[in-house]
Amino acid sequence: MNLQRYLEERSRLVDRALERVLPQNGTLPGMLNQAMRYSLFSGGKRIRPILALASGEAVGAPLARVLPFACALEMIHAYSLIHDDLPAMDDDDLRRGKPTNHVVFGEGMAVLAGDGLLTEAFRVMAEGALRHGVDRTAALRALREVAIGAGAAGMVGGQVADLEAEGKKPTRTRVEYIHTRKTAALLRAAVRAGALVGGAQPKEFARLDRYGTALGLAFQVADDILDVEGGTDKTGKRAGRDAELHKVTYPAAVGILKAKRRARELLDDALAALKPFDQSAEPLRQIALFVVERAV
Amino acid sequence: MNLQRYLEERSRLVDRALERVLPQNGTLPGMLNQAMRYSLFSGGKRIRPILALASGEAVGAPLARVLPFACALEMIHAYSLIHDDLPAMDDDDLRRGKPTNHVVFGEGMAVLAGDGLLTEAFRVMAEGALRHGVDRTAALRALREVAIGAGAAGMVGGQVADLEAEGKKPTRTRVEYIHTRKTAALLRAAVRAGALVGGAQPKEFARLDRYGTALGLAFQVADDILDVEGGTDKTGKRAGRDAELHKVTYPAAVGILKAKRRARELLDDALAALKPFDQSAEPLRQIALFVVERAV
Repeated sequence: MNLQRYLEERSRLVDRALERVLPQNGTLPGMLNQAMRYSLFSGGKRIRPILALASGEAVGAPLARVLPFACALEMIHAYSLIHDDLPAMDDDDLRRGKPTNHVVFGEGMAVLAGDGLLTEAFRVMAEGALRHGVDRTAALRALREVAIGAGAAGMVGGQVADLEAEGKKPTRTRVEYIHTRKTAALLRAAVRAGALVGGAQPKEFARLDRYGTALGLAFQVADDILDVEGGTDKTGKRAGRDAELHKVTYPAAVGILKAKRRARELLDDALAALKPFDQSAEPLRQIALFVVERAV
Repeated sequence: MNLQRYLEERSRLVDRALERVLPQNGTLPGMLNQAMRYSLFSGGKRIRPILALASGEAVGAPLARVLPFACALEMIHAYSLIHDDLPAMDDDDLRRGKPTNHVVFGEGMAVLAGDGLLTEAFRVMAEGALRHGVDRTAALRALREVAIGAGAAGMVGGQVADLEAEGKKPTRTRVEYIHTRKTAALLRAAVRAGALVGGAQPKEFARLDRYGTALGLAFQVADDILDVEGGTDKTGKRAGRDAELHKVTYPAAVGILKAKRRARELLDDALAALKPFDQSAEPLRQIALFVVERAV
């Protein structure tokens, strides 16, 4: 398969669905709509929604059934970036080469745009499940997975641990604790939610979950490596920004060589988990290869 | 019935459930847990969860079935107060006589505590629905109602409209637009969610919805009146704070007498909607009377 073409097609599918969820001329207060759209349509790679779709595909689900959950994952990702960039958090003025949300719309509106995206994400999942005839128990389980991945034990918790760790010694234990929550939890939730809504059997679910767990951590380790070695063009943020913010990173904890070895181990584990799947899991395999190989 | 005793009992029930949802010594990053609990257990009247429970009662639902939704509503309310109080928003340093969340924990943590409470609220609803054998379609519909009430077309949208209206002429149209979203939407969602999870028939649902719509607006109009006439002890915030912030209020738009008349009209409508219900709806009636009569 051609991964680049696959990613572009899926990305367009997600974008069209997000356009329906949050149209340009909706009925929402004008500024809020604009602020939410500004960050939602700012050139993200749509990796979380694509993972959810690919996970559903691996168990033979029609795309339409997973799509609302895919949209929700991207909305949650977009909200998290808006809040992360706030002056009270990382205080970033640039994201993907554009001024950050609060620079354009002001801090108060940026907080609310994030709140709006997060809340609407759950509306979109519930509505999608009611409309597309998804099995309702599976829908509730998938929605719960997304909430866990995004919530206090997941992404939000990781963000807190990250804030609390700034300036502290970056040990491997600390960095894995943070990464597992801050980034990996939502990626893993994407895979789990796609599998559940897609109707995965327990054994399939366990294997996809193992894939998602490994991929989620690999993604952040690779990102850390690229932040040290790559330029702004590869990560969308200025190289060296993590060091500047005294973030706890994998290379800082164990060195760049061991970080690369860890990324390769995680890739191997992700691929091994997918062994019993046929061609239907090829997108998941290719995504894992792509995520890790550009960094090692 | 004795409303005071009813409110106390229900409030204790909600508090106990919230304690199970967010225990003191949970596994979350310590500061996050503390910051979320600080605002969640800071003496709120639990009016949203109590409304959901009372709405469920009106259609004969066991309390346990509605309780997770009740908890979620209070968590969403708590998050909204944390974010409202932020320096970038209303910049309040006092809430219910205590320092606000960001004063105690810092701005970054306050943003995250709000994000955590909002996200966990949806986890709690999904989990509750899966555990308590709630009809799953009803659960998804109730969860959707809460997301709509709290989201961009509801509470968050009202907050944006409120921000945008500061300093503008307070017309009746503008103030009803804001109030309907900022406060009434989540109160209405509480009534709707309770009815849905409680298994309301379509006709019962329509009547409870009419009650919730009227009560939601009445609640904010009464709050506006108390802000002008009452002291800190009645509203938990300093009297005159709305005027100080140039908030668009009902009395400012139409005068205090017309505001009181409007509150009474809304009370009448709320009570009329409940006519066909028997004693089971008595708590809802008493709550409406209590909300309006302390202000007019």
